[in-house]
Amino acid sequence: MFRRPRDARACARLAGLTACVLLASAAHARAPHGPSAAEIAEHGDGRNMPPCSACHGASGEGNSAAALPRLAGLPAAYQLAQLNALADGTRADPVMTPLARGMSTQVRAQLASYYAGLSLHVEPATDTARDDGLALRGRWSQEIPACVQCHGDGGSGVGSAFPPLAGQPATYIVKQLHAWKDGTRRGDPLSLMQTIAKRLSESDIVVVANYFGMPPLAASTASKDLPAPPPGPGERPIPDDDFGKVIRQGREIFENPAKYADRYMGNDLRCSSCHLDEGRHVGSAPMWAAYVSYPAYRAKNHKVNTFAERLQGCFLYSMNGTQPPLGDPVLVALESYAYWMARGVPVDPGVAGRGYLRLPKPPAPPDFTRGREVYARTCALCHGSDGAGQRAGNGSPAFPALWGSDSYNWGAGMVGVTVAAGFIKANMPFGLGGTLSDQEAWDVALFVDSHERPQDPRYTGSVADTRMQFHDNDDSMYGKPVNGHLLGSDSVRPGPR
Amino acid sequence: MFRRPRDARACARLAGLTACVLLASAAHARAPHGPSAAEIAEHGDGRNMPPCSACHGASGEGNSAAALPRLAGLPAAYQLAQLNALADGTRADPVMTPLARGMSTQVRAQLASYYAGLSLHVEPATDTARDDGLALRGRWSQEIPACVQCHGDGGSGVGSAFPPLAGQPATYIVKQLHAWKDGTRRGDPLSLMQTIAKRLSESDIVVVANYFGMPPLAASTASKDLPAPPPGPGERPIPDDDFGKVIRQGREIFENPAKYADRYMGNDLRCSSCHLDEGRHVGSAPMWAAYVSYPAYRAKNHKVNTFAERLQGCFLYSMNGTQPPLGDPVLVALESYAYWMARGVPVDPGVAGRGYLRLPKPPAPPDFTRGREVYARTCALCHGSDGAGQRAGNGSPAFPALWGSDSYNWGAGMVGVTVAAGFIKANMPFGLGGTLSDQEAWDVALFVDSHERPQDPRYTGSVADTRMQFHDNDDSMYGKPVNGHLLGSDSVRPGPR
Repeated sequence: MFRRPRDARACARLAGLTACVLLASAAHARAPHGPSAAEIAEHGDGRNMPPCSACHGASGEGNSAAALPRLAGLPAAYQLAQLNALADGTRADPVMTPLARGMSTQVRAQLASYYAGLSLHVEPATDTARDDGLALRGRWSQEIPACVQCHGDGGSGVGSAFPPLAGQPATYIVKQLHAWKDGTRRGDPLSLMQTIAKRLSESDIVVVANYFGMPPLAASTASKDLPAPPPGPGERPIPDDDFGKVIRQGREIFENPAKYADRYMGNDLRCSSCHLDEGRHVGSAPMWAAYVSYPAYRAKNHKVNTFAERLQGCFLYSMNGTQPPLGDPVLVALESYAYWMARGVPVDPGVAGRGYLRLPKPPAPPDFTRGREVYARTCALCHGSDGAGQRAGNGSPAFPALWGSDSYNWGAGMVGVTVAAGFIKANMPFGLGGTLSDQEAWDVALFVDSHERPQDPRYTGSVADTRMQFHDNDDSMYGKPVNGHLLGSDSVRPGPR
Repeated sequence: MFRRPRDARACARLAGLTACVLLASAAHARAPHGPSAAEIAEHGDGRNMPPCSACHGASGEGNSAAALPRLAGLPAAYQLAQLNALADGTRADPVMTPLARGMSTQVRAQLASYYAGLSLHVEPATDTARDDGLALRGRWSQEIPACVQCHGDGGSGVGSAFPPLAGQPATYIVKQLHAWKDGTRRGDPLSLMQTIAKRLSESDIVVVANYFGMPPLAASTASKDLPAPPPGPGERPIPDDDFGKVIRQGREIFENPAKYADRYMGNDLRCSSCHLDEGRHVGSAPMWAAYVSYPAYRAKNHKVNTFAERLQGCFLYSMNGTQPPLGDPVLVALESYAYWMARGVPVDPGVAGRGYLRLPKPPAPPDFTRGREVYARTCALCHGSDGAGQRAGNGSPAFPALWGSDSYNWGAGMVGVTVAAGFIKANMPFGLGGTLSDQEAWDVALFVDSHERPQDPRYTGSVADTRMQFHDNDDSMYGKPVNGHLLGSDSVRPGPR
């Protein structure tokens, strides 16, 4: 279903690399003069520490009644980080904090590795009827991204920073969301969960817990914190008829083109990688605004483009693939989906909310070195230090590649530093839009754009000539030297189309 | 430029047939014991009648200073009808009424034929800068059709009921519009000009006279009768840029596809034959409403159709032609034109004004015989008693064919009797929409639909089977017997596409 699964690289890509490798050999090792991790888990350490299985279950499956987590199969680096956090108090728990403090660093690592290695069959969450939209689509009117966008398809987890939610007791998920919300759990990367949990109502928390966790809880009787806003563009229910079928296909393609439009794709990006909130979100080129803005003349190809032709461009450049022929069901479905989202929006190329945020020029010229620092601090967590993105535990694409062979090519709109800076400022880090300074957004946009990516499909045989013909009016880095390397000169050239 | 010119047929098609033929032989004949028409024109009849040339000019070119008409080249039947009207007082003129009364019927016919045969080089009006929109596009907010729609392209005249305007003194046009308006000129078919002239302001009259006539008059200082309404859909100026260029191409194609999209056309209809007022008019499926209604699922072809695909259907069925491929400049231009008209209109398949008027079922079932009578009385004037339409004096299409080989085929939407009845009620007779009773509209719709036309392009080889497969849910007459003839059985089958 998904090409190029990268499960094996997921672990190696993050900060957990060293730990992973160490632990892999330490999993069944015995601490000098002490019991093994398996012995501690099953019988305790024979001194003060009770057996882990007493609370977390014989198979590490957790305990729903006591709201205690599943440990089996969770990434070792994640579990080690939790034991350390429990020990140092950034994750406060009356039972676990004293226990974690009583463990040596080595014992924590051994236990983390032991439980990571326990196999527990867990089905990813798939029952969409149990979600009211939050888990799968988020609620961007409150800047709440979908849970699955960071925790992966079906809650199967992404890397070691975004643990699986599927298979956790629902009671435990509720308890943790409360802990993020009230500050008794802290220390999460970029404070992502603390920020997002504060935006959740009590009923939101129950819905999310029930979507990913087991067994289901009674629905919360608490009213939502905020009254539901009137439906915005694209928030109307999709009609349950022949047209609705095609609209739904469009939404599926939009969310997962690598699965539903595979033959036209050259990478694993999603349409919603650039057009957040399933193409609805103001500040990330919402599709309802695009729909009412075409046909339009585009200097990019010196002609009037219909909406369908504009969509073709996304496949050719952003998806580094091939253009679906006009009239292809993929284009018709995407056009139908955009049309449906645009319902009620006046036809107007100047409609408010169109395109990406236009960020003013920064105080200082964008700088590669500063951008690298911003990237390491705020972007690498999700997109990887090599810019190659990450996959979920079930192999489906999670965070998009920002450069390299799996990213958008040199012809995509996102290679414009201005475009990228506006997108980043408005939307990144994911769920924390608006938190970077303008200068940081410009710097990191320049940094991202200063890496090789697949060749521009319009490549003429010469980078300089291609730059002159196709990039003279954009501010991409294509054809410019960065640290002695001419960008575009080492790109993978796509095969003949 | 235009195929199948039918100038030769224009005269024969109308009520003027007998007169035409008679006059052709009588043109240079001498009345028994009297002077010839040429002698009367040049020298008078030697008794009371002065020479025609004294007022109408040596070449029958008219007299601008005295507001007297050009006669040269005007259809004989038209001129004879005017002499008769002047004689019987339905066209009152202090000079011409006594003169016409003094002529024998035979002399009137001779003079009409003589002046019809005089050749006078007249350029059709082409200087669009002299029109403020009324002459070329009309003003449908007041139900004023464009002058050229009845008087032909450039004012070159259509048949013998719609005389040329090009080459008339502007002063004469002004005088006649005043005469229609104040009732001193009457007797026009269906009272068309009396009705329309009453809707014209003083400044309208000057603009129209200056567009078609010579020499130009000073612009009227009279204010318009009505303040200009706010611009409706599609009334905004087309932008003067690269997109505007394509929008204008779309408008040109829309108005004259036989000229600008010839390769996809199988007849000489215009898009505006069904979509009045250049595709703007409520009650005749305005394009701005169509634009915001697609993509949509259509039972006609069992799939979701984009707007471009819907346009393809017009070419295949209404134009009896071939579908332009998706992405063809013809479709892109038409889509751009519709988009531009839709500006400001909310995206909504239920937008008010969409489609044709939905006429309630009539008191009595639609009837062929009654329909034939309505047709003869109100439709044949323009569309011809044979339903074949009429061309302008310069050969360009004027009134569309309603059946026969030059009309829309059996697959077009207009073959639905319900659709046709709604269109007719709202818009016909042209410029007199709403004047037929519901019953008349239904009857004449049935009558029109009870004639052969080109075969349905989906024809399977059997009329019954084609009816079952493609017409089971419409109320067209295809496959039904009328006066012993099975409709569809004698249709021209289009060649392979």
